[in-house]
Amino acid sequence: MGKDPRSIVAAKRDGEALPTADIEAFVHGYANGEIGDPLAAAFLMACVIRGLDTDETLAMTQAMIASGDTVSFPGLTMPTVDKHSTGGVADGVTLVFAPIAAALGLGVAKLSGRGLGHTGGTLDKLESIPGLRTDLSAAQIARQVETVGCAVGAQSPSLVPADGALYALRDATATVPSIPLIAASVMSKKLAVHTDLILLDVKAGSGAFMKTVDAAEDLATACLRLARGAGREARIAVTDMSQPLGDAIGNALDVAEAIALLRGDHRGRLRELSLLFAAQAAEVSGLVPADEALAAAERALDSGDALERFRAMVQAQGGDPRVVDEPDDLLPRAPVAAPIEAPTDGWLSAVDAESLGAASVTLGAGRVRKGDPIDPSVGIVMRAKIGDRLERGQPVGFVYAANADDAAAALSTTQAALVITDDAVSVLPLVYDWFG
Amino acid sequence: MGKDPRSIVAAKRDGEALPTADIEAFVHGYANGEIGDPLAAAFLMACVIRGLDTDETLAMTQAMIASGDTVSFPGLTMPTVDKHSTGGVADGVTLVFAPIAAALGLGVAKLSGRGLGHTGGTLDKLESIPGLRTDLSAAQIARQVETVGCAVGAQSPSLVPADGALYALRDATATVPSIPLIAASVMSKKLAVHTDLILLDVKAGSGAFMKTVDAAEDLATACLRLARGAGREARIAVTDMSQPLGDAIGNALDVAEAIALLRGDHRGRLRELSLLFAAQAAEVSGLVPADEALAAAERALDSGDALERFRAMVQAQGGDPRVVDEPDDLLPRAPVAAPIEAPTDGWLSAVDAESLGAASVTLGAGRVRKGDPIDPSVGIVMRAKIGDRLERGQPVGFVYAANADDAAAALSTTQAALVITDDAVSVLPLVYDWFG
Repeated sequence: MGKDPRSIVAAKRDGEALPTADIEAFVHGYANGEIGDPLAAAFLMACVIRGLDTDETLAMTQAMIASGDTVSFPGLTMPTVDKHSTGGVADGVTLVFAPIAAALGLGVAKLSGRGLGHTGGTLDKLESIPGLRTDLSAAQIARQVETVGCAVGAQSPSLVPADGALYALRDATATVPSIPLIAASVMSKKLAVHTDLILLDVKAGSGAFMKTVDAAEDLATACLRLARGAGREARIAVTDMSQPLGDAIGNALDVAEAIALLRGDHRGRLRELSLLFAAQAAEVSGLVPADEALAAAERALDSGDALERFRAMVQAQGGDPRVVDEPDDLLPRAPVAAPIEAPTDGWLSAVDAESLGAASVTLGAGRVRKGDPIDPSVGIVMRAKIGDRLERGQPVGFVYAANADDAAAALSTTQAALVITDDAVSVLPLVYDWFG
Repeated sequence: MGKDPRSIVAAKRDGEALPTADIEAFVHGYANGEIGDPLAAAFLMACVIRGLDTDETLAMTQAMIASGDTVSFPGLTMPTVDKHSTGGVADGVTLVFAPIAAALGLGVAKLSGRGLGHTGGTLDKLESIPGLRTDLSAAQIARQVETVGCAVGAQSPSLVPADGALYALRDATATVPSIPLIAASVMSKKLAVHTDLILLDVKAGSGAFMKTVDAAEDLATACLRLARGAGREARIAVTDMSQPLGDAIGNALDVAEAIALLRGDHRGRLRELSLLFAAQAAEVSGLVPADEALAAAERALDSGDALERFRAMVQAQGGDPRVVDEPDDLLPRAPVAAPIEAPTDGWLSAVDAESLGAASVTLGAGRVRKGDPIDPSVGIVMRAKIGDRLERGQPVGFVYAANADDAAAALSTTQAALVITDDAVSVLPLVYDWFG
């Protein structure tokens, strides 16, 4: 690069807004190894403290996209949609949303990453289905979307490689908490994949990266500006993650819950939110009028159409389609299942969702570090929700573990995560706001 | 270390004042390699932007000192003094000050570093004297101070090793400009050497690292607080570096100018400032009453006592003592000497001292990078000072070069560094302020 990259860092250090060309040069220099981790870490810290305005954030996002390949799905005959969550606990929306949206006539083309930390990843969940593969090429995804309506594949390492490198550096250098940097990380991977609509679910609460609704709304706004700056259609919801969204916190456990929802055997906030996203996609894509969209989504689910789309997706990706009929027989099962009992009488007023997510990771369901192996069978099912009246000793779920010691430790964490009070509490909203 | 070091960086990122134990743990972790350059770079950037208060700066300074060895000179019978400059052009004060102070009854024990960038280093200057060695142990320095009154040795790499590592990292990551970090760097090396008095010369102006008097005063104040926090006596002057202090910008050239001053053959601002520092040291040490100190220093110089101390120091350090009698014959001489002529008629109103320093480095007198070899013979002598009336073509100095091409390039830079105006200008003060 021409300019001394230290002068770019110095300008941000001193609070200046950086020209697009400088941000491009810096990200490009980092991606190709000309700029090392120490200078990049100093740059990131200056960005965290001084901030990045909308133009700077867009420049960084586009420079990150330019660090790798982009993906498109030419020749599809239906409107396409990508759906992403910023990460929550028991957040299996994609597994339920995708087949409902497909049944409504949308093409859901999703490239997903692996789970990390206390939140699970869609790929890991799907791969608990025997035989199912996620290493799909863009052409394979396009073919499957055209015939089945939905496909979930693994993000290639060549998709926004600068994001992986920058995220690892931010994690190591205390430079994670920055709305512009988080927005650039999230949206670079969405904008690098060309669909007609981007649906984004920004989680807010104890189980999310954004602990407050205000912070989540700031992130949603920043992400929407990036979509608009890139000329892309997006709808972004800020939704509640003050407790696990569904009941299952695991991998096979998540799949079993999704199948139960698709079969109509189960209800709850996970069903509700999946329907809202599918209705939003159908409406924005012009497939259904706004006032009929939610009813159409409910019909697609309750009629069994969505279940058949799910079955077809599993089959198309090499999985055993009988999993939708006999999930208990075909999904991996943990050797130990220990019932969770309510520790005292009262009203469930709060749940430490992050602590439940972390307990599930400790059981083996998730990763502390990238590349760690996971056990698809283990995890937690927590049926109690905020606002429920509990009696001491009442069964509220199960811990699924590889052995009795693991189960005992997780039971203790799980009970400690439940805050039970003498007074009734009101139920929190599911969706705080829509943006876009 | 116990605590996750990222939490320390996060606290400074968020504008918190850090407890002493956290700063100690971080500097210690960096010094022993547990904390890598990227996290340290993020920490330094957070320190530059958020600042460090007096307690934090002292904690950092003391942690840096604790990264290596300290030096003391037990058994000396006279008050000891160390003198340091933050770096200027033609700043040969130490060479003149040390023998004057010795003649007044002080013990000058100075550990010096090498020159880097546009400012020269005392070690490099002294080593242009044939045979002179600076690799002295603390015991050798103490013996020489007791018998001769002054000694200048090389800083051991084990003296504040964290400073060298942190400074290189700051240079690479645009985290140099921070008064607390600069003060910690300067004072850690002074506080690690136990003398009764620290004299510090903070340079301000075009040839200094601090370009303004305000910034230099801030640095002086921060350094004084560190000395007081460590229980040490210090006197700090902010002095003018808007033009070269002496005439010589080189190594052998600096030594020749110092010898000329000590022989009484030459006068000017370099003599004046050296006398002021020696007077200050004698007064603070209680050797001479305040109102007689400057006169006593002048007597020590004009009587030839200081010259004899210089001769004895050169001899004690293995150098050829005849250099004080026949400097032209014994000091290395450059093959090309090209006269500098005033480019136009008028009053010399400004001199770009940094540009003259850089031209001298280009000639070979200084280093761009640590460890670069230097040529002791080359450099620039610039006799014209701000306020002088010049006639076009009037000789104002010489460029000393290894060859004619180098000389021509330096002549052109040198002439461009002189700002000559039609109106008379006033002479700038030599000392702006004393602190302490």
